[in-house]
Amino acid sequence: MEFAFDARTEELRAQLLTFMDEAVYPAEQTFHDQLDALENPWAWSTVPVLAELRAAARSRGLWNLFLPGEHGAGLTNLQYAPLAEITGRSGIAPAAINCSAPDTGNMEVLSMFGSEMQRKEWLDPLLAGEIRSSFAMTEPDVASSDATNISTRIERDGDDYVLNGRKWWITGALNPDAAVFIVMGKSDPEAARHRQQSMILVPRDTPGLTIKRGMEVFGYDDREKGGHAELELADVRVPAANLIGQEGDGFAIAQARLGPGRIHHCMRVVGVAERALELMCARAAQREAFGKKLSEQGVIRDWIAEARVRIEQLRLLTLKAAWLMDTAGNKGAHTEIQAIKIAAPQTVEWIVDKAIQVHGAGGLSQDFPLAKLFASIRTLRFADGPDEVHKNALARNELRRQAERHG
Amino acid sequence: MEFAFDARTEELRAQLLTFMDEAVYPAEQTFHDQLDALENPWAWSTVPVLAELRAAARSRGLWNLFLPGEHGAGLTNLQYAPLAEITGRSGIAPAAINCSAPDTGNMEVLSMFGSEMQRKEWLDPLLAGEIRSSFAMTEPDVASSDATNISTRIERDGDDYVLNGRKWWITGALNPDAAVFIVMGKSDPEAARHRQQSMILVPRDTPGLTIKRGMEVFGYDDREKGGHAELELADVRVPAANLIGQEGDGFAIAQARLGPGRIHHCMRVVGVAERALELMCARAAQREAFGKKLSEQGVIRDWIAEARVRIEQLRLLTLKAAWLMDTAGNKGAHTEIQAIKIAAPQTVEWIVDKAIQVHGAGGLSQDFPLAKLFASIRTLRFADGPDEVHKNALARNELRRQAERHG
Amino acid sequence: MEFAFDARTEELRAQLLTFMDEAVYPAEQTFHDQLDALENPWAWSTVPVLAELRAAARSRGLWNLFLPGEHGAGLTNLQYAPLAEITGRSGIAPAAINCSAPDTGNMEVLSMFGSEMQRKEWLDPLLAGEIRSSFAMTEPDVASSDATNISTRIERDGDDYVLNGRKWWITGALNPDAAVFIVMGKSDPEAARHRQQSMILVPRDTPGLTIKRGMEVFGYDDREKGGHAELELADVRVPAANLIGQEGDGFAIAQARLGPGRIHHCMRVVGVAERALELMCARAAQREAFGKKLSEQGVIRDWIAEARVRIEQLRLLTLKAAWLMDTAGNKGAHTEIQAIKIAAPQTVEWIVDKAIQVHGAGGLSQDFPLAKLFASIRTLRFADGPDEVHKNALARNELRRQAERHG
Amino acid sequence: MEFAFDARTEELRAQLLTFMDEAVYPAEQTFHDQLDALENPWAWSTVPVLAELRAAARSRGLWNLFLPGEHGAGLTNLQYAPLAEITGRSGIAPAAINCSAPDTGNMEVLSMFGSEMQRKEWLDPLLAGEIRSSFAMTEPDVASSDATNISTRIERDGDDYVLNGRKWWITGALNPDAAVFIVMGKSDPEAARHRQQSMILVPRDTPGLTIKRGMEVFGYDDREKGGHAELELADVRVPAANLIGQEGDGFAIAQARLGPGRIHHCMRVVGVAERALELMCARAAQREAFGKKLSEQGVIRDWIAEARVRIEQLRLLTLKAAWLMDTAGNKGAHTEIQAIKIAAPQTVEWIVDKAIQVHGAGGLSQDFPLAKLFASIRTLRFADGPDEVHKNALARNELRRQAERHG
Repeated sequence: MEFAFDARTEELRAQLLTFMDEAVYPAEQTFHDQLDALENPWAWSTVPVLAELRAAARSRGLWNLFLPGEHGAGLTNLQYAPLAEITGRSGIAPAAINCSAPDTGNMEVLSMFGSEMQRKEWLDPLLAGEIRSSFAMTEPDVASSDATNISTRIERDGDDYVLNGRKWWITGALNPDAAVFIVMGKSDPEAARHRQQSMILVPRDTPGLTIKRGMEVFGYDDREKGGHAELELADVRVPAANLIGQEGDGFAIAQARLGPGRIHHCMRVVGVAERALELMCARAAQREAFGKKLSEQGVIRDWIAEARVRIEQLRLLTLKAAWLMDTAGNKGAHTEIQAIKIAAPQTVEWIVDKAIQVHGAGGLSQDFPLAKLFASIRTLRFADGPDEVHKNALARNELRRQAERHG
Repeated sequence: MEFAFDARTEELRAQLLTFMDEAVYPAEQTFHDQLDALENPWAWSTVPVLAELRAAARSRGLWNLFLPGEHGAGLTNLQYAPLAEITGRSGIAPAAINCSAPDTGNMEVLSMFGSEMQRKEWLDPLLAGEIRSSFAMTEPDVASSDATNISTRIERDGDDYVLNGRKWWITGALNPDAAVFIVMGKSDPEAARHRQQSMILVPRDTPGLTIKRGMEVFGYDDREKGGHAELELADVRVPAANLIGQEGDGFAIAQARLGPGRIHHCMRVVGVAERALELMCARAAQREAFGKKLSEQGVIRDWIAEARVRIEQLRLLTLKAAWLMDTAGNKGAHTEIQAIKIAAPQTVEWIVDKAIQVHGAGGLSQDFPLAKLFASIRTLRFADGPDEVHKNALARNELRRQAERHG
Repeated sequence: MEFAFDARTEELRAQLLTFMDEAVYPAEQTFHDQLDALENPWAWSTVPVLAELRAAARSRGLWNLFLPGEHGAGLTNLQYAPLAEITGRSGIAPAAINCSAPDTGNMEVLSMFGSEMQRKEWLDPLLAGEIRSSFAMTEPDVASSDATNISTRIERDGDDYVLNGRKWWITGALNPDAAVFIVMGKSDPEAARHRQQSMILVPRDTPGLTIKRGMEVFGYDDREKGGHAELELADVRVPAANLIGQEGDGFAIAQARLGPGRIHHCMRVVGVAERALELMCARAAQREAFGKKLSEQGVIRDWIAEARVRIEQLRLLTLKAAWLMDTAGNKGAHTEIQAIKIAAPQTVEWIVDKAIQVHGAGGLSQDFPLAKLFASIRTLRFADGPDEVHKNALARNELRRQAERHG
Repeated sequence: MEFAFDARTEELRAQLLTFMDEAVYPAEQTFHDQLDALENPWAWSTVPVLAELRAAARSRGLWNLFLPGEHGAGLTNLQYAPLAEITGRSGIAPAAINCSAPDTGNMEVLSMFGSEMQRKEWLDPLLAGEIRSSFAMTEPDVASSDATNISTRIERDGDDYVLNGRKWWITGALNPDAAVFIVMGKSDPEAARHRQQSMILVPRDTPGLTIKRGMEVFGYDDREKGGHAELELADVRVPAANLIGQEGDGFAIAQARLGPGRIHHCMRVVGVAERALELMCARAAQREAFGKKLSEQGVIRDWIAEARVRIEQLRLLTLKAAWLMDTAGNKGAHTEIQAIKIAAPQTVEWIVDKAIQVHGAGGLSQDFPLAKLFASIRTLRFADGPDEVHKNALARNELRRQAERHG
């Protein structure tokens, strides 16, 4: 057992921290100003300062760090995790180093399961940061916690597949740069429960694919990540070669995508928590009320201490889950991955809430990033199904393990 | 001791509930559609369906119910409280019956402390619902929990007063119908601590008064209540006759305004909690996951039970505070008023959060009122100072009382 | 609506408060010393100072206050509730005025359902405080939340009934003065679900009735209330005339006993909470750490404020439940009675825990009453079934009511 | 970074787990029966089955595992931590392998700071398990969170030191086998704040040392660990050679003792949490209510999942603190050691409380170990000062670190 990062990780952490200080933080306000000035408000990937950041990141070798294997930086989950945490500290950092969701997951899928042609057409420009993509799985009126509930149809028709259905909360889809969507749907409702689904690539301009509207989160349209679209798929026809893997592979691909996705996500929200705690401390140290600095008031110190204690625990759990994925695979890390999915939102939401409280009403406004962070963290309690579903499953496994052990 | 409402209250409750069912709920969507279609997005009071509602309310005798004494409906706090709860169930109900903040508090101030001229010029049109008003007390960079911190200056200059300062979170001020602002400022920094402040009437079009921007809450601009403005007062000159009461009365007037304000507010949020619980139950009864209705799942039942238990307690505490104000005055009700200020936000925020969770990700979006309600409840933890300040004060009083009792 | 107590209540409150100050509090330590010196450690009712207190209470007219109707003081639930709260402040007060459980509930049962002979034999000496009694319902290995689970048998045999079964947590039974037990059992397993049970009077010395042991709560044997016994009933034979009411009435009698019982209990724990808060404030005001009184430290003030806010709400809810029982009957008050059963333990446990924390490690020891209070409050989360069962039932009713209202 | 235990640790874990299964668990009931049958109820170390266990442990090489360096097993903190966790699962396991507090800390002190003579006289028999010891630091009426508050005097008088003062919560002291006490006191009230204290060895039979009484915790006298004594030191005279280290070293020695002590303690309570979760799962899997196993009820599954998620995080944080102590020393691990002191009690108390709730009222009684575990965990919120003090200190450090970083 050893809690120090390895040399490669430390080196990349140092480079990334420098990049954050020199380039990312100074660009944050500019990014938002330029975003607000865009003609198409959803086209966040065209913001000039972001292009500069991306060029700088690439030249520094900080690019596609998330992607294991030959197509990316080749890091393990455990090596990438602390880097993801650092990028979580700034809303624009993940995109600056081409490591922002949902492109990351989509690149992983194409890297692992894409045909050569698919990789050439979509993976290469994604790796180069020339296009964006979306991942269309969640559906309205269906408990998204259960992938087998998917009702969108993918039906073979000659050399094509024809898609019909509705999707929502499709992040990034309102950005015109999102050139391709990976759509999950049912190809065979009669097959075994986890072999009914397939995934298929749908180019943005395919007839029948309509972006109906953007979903808001607490009043935010999340334009800085291309919003969350509701989509209609009406007789959308794509070549059979667009299918990823084989018919019926959809569920397995989704599972493969999920593990690293959660690690990245949870590590980024550890970064969110650190940023919130930093803001909380800075504010508390500067603000006075009733003749005493907030930082000297017991209740606020209690929050700061609790925040630190909780962050340390959450980070370790996430790192351990990453290590398990690397050493025991997705299945071996199953409980730990569920555990971080449960622990991360509740931990970080609490911290951001307290950071807001220390800022006074301004903490809820556009003058600080905190309310926005709260909103984005709040959505995690629904990510791939509400926490309650994950807790229920984790408990079922715990009960089974205990029964086996003590039988 | 008697927990039934009196006959007058029951009669008005029945009328108001009928009005809600027949007129208010059916108009909610129309209001929002018409609001979105306005040329000036802040001019919520010009929305056609609202005018209809207000005419209907007036003809039904449901008008100015909040105002005791000769100028209003003449109800006690205890009589009005359950009516305020009912209006809290719909975002448009308070305005429909001319009982929406900050107009209510302003009318109370003018009714109690305004000169005959002031009442004629501002109170009468407010009572008639012809104009709106704002209340400008909170300042940036100053702990608003302490009214003595106010830094805006009100200086006598001949027959005028000249105002200089900055205000923010001035609700309603972006609405062009907000014809007059009651501004709190310092008229004599050398006077005793609670005699330094004065309140003065500033018509909207007074030179030097600039509306700089709207503050957002989470991502909401709260246009349906005229937003929350940041104001600049630069050599704003108004006649001396605009002063409310005497120089130095500002703090006392603010205190007088506060008591009933909190009762109304807390009762309205009890209504919010009831609406959230209603939505939670309806959703739970309709939605299935993993082959079972949400309403049959233990965790969700636990939330529903907790919600009911907490609502009942919060309502009773608020009603008791209202009764105490009526029977023992503001001072006699001081602890209870503080207590509801502390209890209401934490209770109702918890309930709305759980209602959201039962709705899935949609619960955070524009498709349901819940995220908006959460945002508005969240601001209450800062209303007239953060909860922590109120808890500290309440505890100090408790310690004093205990020390007196036990020597 | 009216939150002041009526004149009769105020008069009795004043008398009772005087009695507490003059007689009860000064006797607390003596009671415990004399209890420790008893030959039979369970015979709490023979402690000399208690006899003095009881004589004094009787002469002051503070006797059997709990009992409505002709046999007792004739108070309503709403009138008795605030008196019960006062007695909750001292562990010896309820017994001092002959209002301690389980005798109270047993007297109510005999008063309402007992035959003339049963009343003469058992109610009269109980009212006079000459004997004690126990109530034997809970059974090991059976979810006591569901009275229909009872497995003890009551079988008719000629002119007798014969009882067989096991009971536990039978409070008071280890006291040799507990002259009679009301035993709940199944008389007809074939009858309708709520007509299978009967209640019957079993004198202490009946052959076949064995007291096996005392159950402990944490490390306390609760000798000051006669402990909590485990009983064995092996062919216990009593005359048929000992049956209370008719065969099959057991469930209905238990329900009738429960309502007032909860009101009394919850009001007493409001008194516990007040005493804990009082101790917390006193300690905080006296103790210094790091150069500052505990009472000046933010976290402790936060606890004090929360405690006050929660107590006020809990008391009002309990009083309202009492009022509802008086005006709408047990059934009409069903939800409120469930609500106080849920709210009281969680509220008061939290307060006692914080009071302990303010006292340091000593707070857990025999030097203060707090750990003992915590233990007794903790048991309430199981009283007549765990809280989770009550929450589940309350939620089911809430869902039904909401469904009816909104169709 | 590497989350697997090293080979030495895995080997010892396997041996220890076998020992637990084969010897420790089967002896638990016997230990308690034999303890109850002792003539001197405090002499737990004379219980026959314990002697057998200790002989067996020693022969298996499971002895003094806690002690680094030449005198003990020579393990690092990180190696010992997972073994301590295992022993935490049974109340008799630590003593079975001679790793129970306060002997462990005392042996560490003697090992590091004792003179050759002191080690010969006291360390050797302690290592051999022939005697027991106590550690007398905490004092009544003084905030024990601040070692500089100590009021017991240690005064030089010729070749002796003379001690006067009062101590309480001196664990183990009621056991007549506790042959020696390490007493902390003030040797020079005029010295610098952290040089005023000394530690000195006081043999049990020294005249003037009186054991006044045992402190109870929730009604438990904790006889199975020799209770918690209140001591009086009245002109207790010991040779100057009994001083540990130099005059003024007391504070530094206490700090050195504290770090590993917390690691051991927190790891043992992780074991407590695991045992509680195990009992909770077993009970839930076996018990039915309302026609459904408890293990299938949502609320209980929620508790089980939360318990697992919290345990994993707590364990990792404790292991990291152990690793930091090994690699960066006590000072380098300061924040993490504080963090586990804060996190462990709140985490484990919550889990034990829920385990109790799943067991019904029996869970509070002598029929299960849970109430006892709750009581012992509850004391940890006061161990070396209440949690609030530790949170305050941790927050102060966090604020300082943040200020340094962001200047």
